[in-house]
Amino acid sequence: MAKPLPVSPLASPLPDLGTVPGVRLGAVAAGIRYKGRTDLVVAEFDAGTTVAGVFTQSKCPGAPVDWCRSALKGGVARALVVNAGNANVFTGRAGVATCEKTAEAEAHLAGCAPSEVFLASTGVIGEVLPAERITAALPALHAALTEDGWEAAARGIMTTDTFPKAAVRKTEIGGVPVTIQGIAKGSGMIAPDMATMLSFVATDAKLPASVLQSLLSKGVVTSFNAITVDSDTSTSDMVLLFATGRADNPAIASADDSALSAFRAALDSLLLELALMVVRDGEGARKQIRINVTGAVSDASARTVARAIADSPLVKTAVAGEDANWGRVVMAVGKCGEPADRDLLTVGIGGVTIACEGTVVEDYDETPVVAHMKGREIEIDVDLGLGEGHATMWSCDLTHGYIDINGSYRS
Amino acid sequence: MAKPLPVSPLASPLPDLGTVPGVRLGAVAAGIRYKGRTDLVVAEFDAGTTVAGVFTQSKCPGAPVDWCRSALKGGVARALVVNAGNANVFTGRAGVATCEKTAEAEAHLAGCAPSEVFLASTGVIGEVLPAERITAALPALHAALTEDGWEAAARGIMTTDTFPKAAVRKTEIGGVPVTIQGIAKGSGMIAPDMATMLSFVATDAKLPASVLQSLLSKGVVTSFNAITVDSDTSTSDMVLLFATGRADNPAIASADDSALSAFRAALDSLLLELALMVVRDGEGARKQIRINVTGAVSDASARTVARAIADSPLVKTAVAGEDANWGRVVMAVGKCGEPADRDLLTVGIGGVTIACEGTVVEDYDETPVVAHMKGREIEIDVDLGLGEGHATMWSCDLTHGYIDINGSYRS
Repeated sequence: MAKPLPVSPLASPLPDLGTVPGVRLGAVAAGIRYKGRTDLVVAEFDAGTTVAGVFTQSKCPGAPVDWCRSALKGGVARALVVNAGNANVFTGRAGVATCEKTAEAEAHLAGCAPSEVFLASTGVIGEVLPAERITAALPALHAALTEDGWEAAARGIMTTDTFPKAAVRKTEIGGVPVTIQGIAKGSGMIAPDMATMLSFVATDAKLPASVLQSLLSKGVVTSFNAITVDSDTSTSDMVLLFATGRADNPAIASADDSALSAFRAALDSLLLELALMVVRDGEGARKQIRINVTGAVSDASARTVARAIADSPLVKTAVAGEDANWGRVVMAVGKCGEPADRDLLTVGIGGVTIACEGTVVEDYDETPVVAHMKGREIEIDVDLGLGEGHATMWSCDLTHGYIDINGSYRS
Repeated sequence: MAKPLPVSPLASPLPDLGTVPGVRLGAVAAGIRYKGRTDLVVAEFDAGTTVAGVFTQSKCPGAPVDWCRSALKGGVARALVVNAGNANVFTGRAGVATCEKTAEAEAHLAGCAPSEVFLASTGVIGEVLPAERITAALPALHAALTEDGWEAAARGIMTTDTFPKAAVRKTEIGGVPVTIQGIAKGSGMIAPDMATMLSFVATDAKLPASVLQSLLSKGVVTSFNAITVDSDTSTSDMVLLFATGRADNPAIASADDSALSAFRAALDSLLLELALMVVRDGEGARKQIRINVTGAVSDASARTVARAIADSPLVKTAVAGEDANWGRVVMAVGKCGEPADRDLLTVGIGGVTIACEGTVVEDYDETPVVAHMKGREIEIDVDLGLGEGHATMWSCDLTHGYIDINGSYRS
């Protein structure tokens, strides 16, 4: 991009970030692609830190995704290295070698095994990521790590993001206070080119890796897996959750332990907050869209219907045009192949029922809906009238800004 | 739309249209939605005309789609009534009543049963289509039908189309000359709002309805079912094929009869020509994209991969920006869930292999690819290296024009 993007009108301010005992982090300008800004982030974790991860479903994942999937088998983490500007995707053997060299260099500094170092890259794909730029920058960065480095880390992983993204929760396990704090980046949610979605969350809770993985896998269903900006799935998406174990909470052996209920709720809420920041920084986004689908034959069916609406270019351009074009919602329901009966369908926007039983409601007054469409947060409700399945997805509008950002030449 | 859209830079001129013996047609301004243009088209067919049809897969189809599916069971057709500007979709019992009244009125004029009258509507959805505007206009239109009415019909079914679409083929069955001639409309291929895809094709060949249906069902796979403008499936899409039987060709009992080979090829080619016109009039389109996928585990898998590329907003915006961003092609392959191996993948643009075996080719020279991207017809080739499955899809770029057309208010 020749000129910096204007900050999203949906941007949220950075919250007051604290520390997570057992996590030290920082960022530096390694000159990988950008000029005059930080682009390399490192976090180091105390010995005993457990880790969980979820990754893109792409069949063409980046080398760092392969690396992390493998490293995750150990369940322990001592360091995380993230670079912005080059995704190290479709880079063949050179990409694998860059991962190995980066992990070895960081492992040497952190005093751990390379398999305890997690790696993430975001940015342009198909270009070799020069390992030496990273390894040259690591020693000074390692020396400067601090527990207060969260904001620097949030800024250092940005690509086309127009604002840094972080969230924090204070909760408890068995009465013992614990903190959860995380950062995210992403704007073409799932765009591979300069806009991959990444998120890193840490807590001082003491939790086995298996419990952590269960919590994260469930938590992303209603957060990071419930958002879409442009329907394009990245080669590099990942969410990693680290638990340093510095808190003295009671031992937890199962994710179903009732002592985890507050922690689980706090984690879910933090993941959703971070995920919504990604939507609200969607490329060109000027409005957030929340789609609630009820009455489906199953939750999975409801998700497919919600996703069809959330991804529809015609729905998204209608929202951009502040047009309460409910007919396009009907179209999206009809196209996705899930069980639906036109004559049982109810569609509402902004809390106003517009159509039911196969036609527009009698004396439909568009006035309140038109007012709703002028707002920043658009709500679309669809009831299929078939069963109990329900799902919620979040999306954003499709505007000229999206075309500007993605239709311009890479270099 | 407040002002008329500029004609697509990809527009093709209307061919010299002849007649199809046994078909009389015409158009009139019925004032259904538009001012100062024709919006109601009627075609009448000689007794003995057979018919085949394919329809949208939407679970929320318009009333005319339901009507035609039912009428098709008889296999014979005597008339077709098409209106532009109102799709008669999601109009409940009123929509069904409009279909019944329209068919009855036209049947009375044509001297046939209402079930021999086919109906199609295109335009805005969710608004009641007033039957009386149609039935009031039908008598004068019926009186003025002519074998030369094809261009008038092609223009009368347009909505956001920027050019009329028609194609003609002269072929033979068993040495007897026959004509195939058809019209189409559509621009947001499959957009429900003012842009539904419709096509009507007629021939004077004498063919049983079952043979006609087999030919049409196979023909659309590589034509109308191989195009996408915006991934949104209309509530109203249909292709109808009529055969008047006025030609004195030998009797044909099976679609596999070798005497049909020339006819089949001509029909397939005509369907593809019409389908590509829809792509080339895609809302905001400035470039046509042809995606060839080979080496898939099956043809179906190849189609899914090709469709993922064809529908990807990031691929389509890259083409709009004349950016040979092959990384986004890799992303689209990876996201669609079909079997793919990053390290066996080959990607080419404009006939130039850019990437293979998991990385960019050595000494890749972008110069010829950059030149190709500046053209109007962009070719993307993907080989998955896994099997013999192959498919071709056509799409168009995603430009500011699409946002302008679809992000403006309906009224």
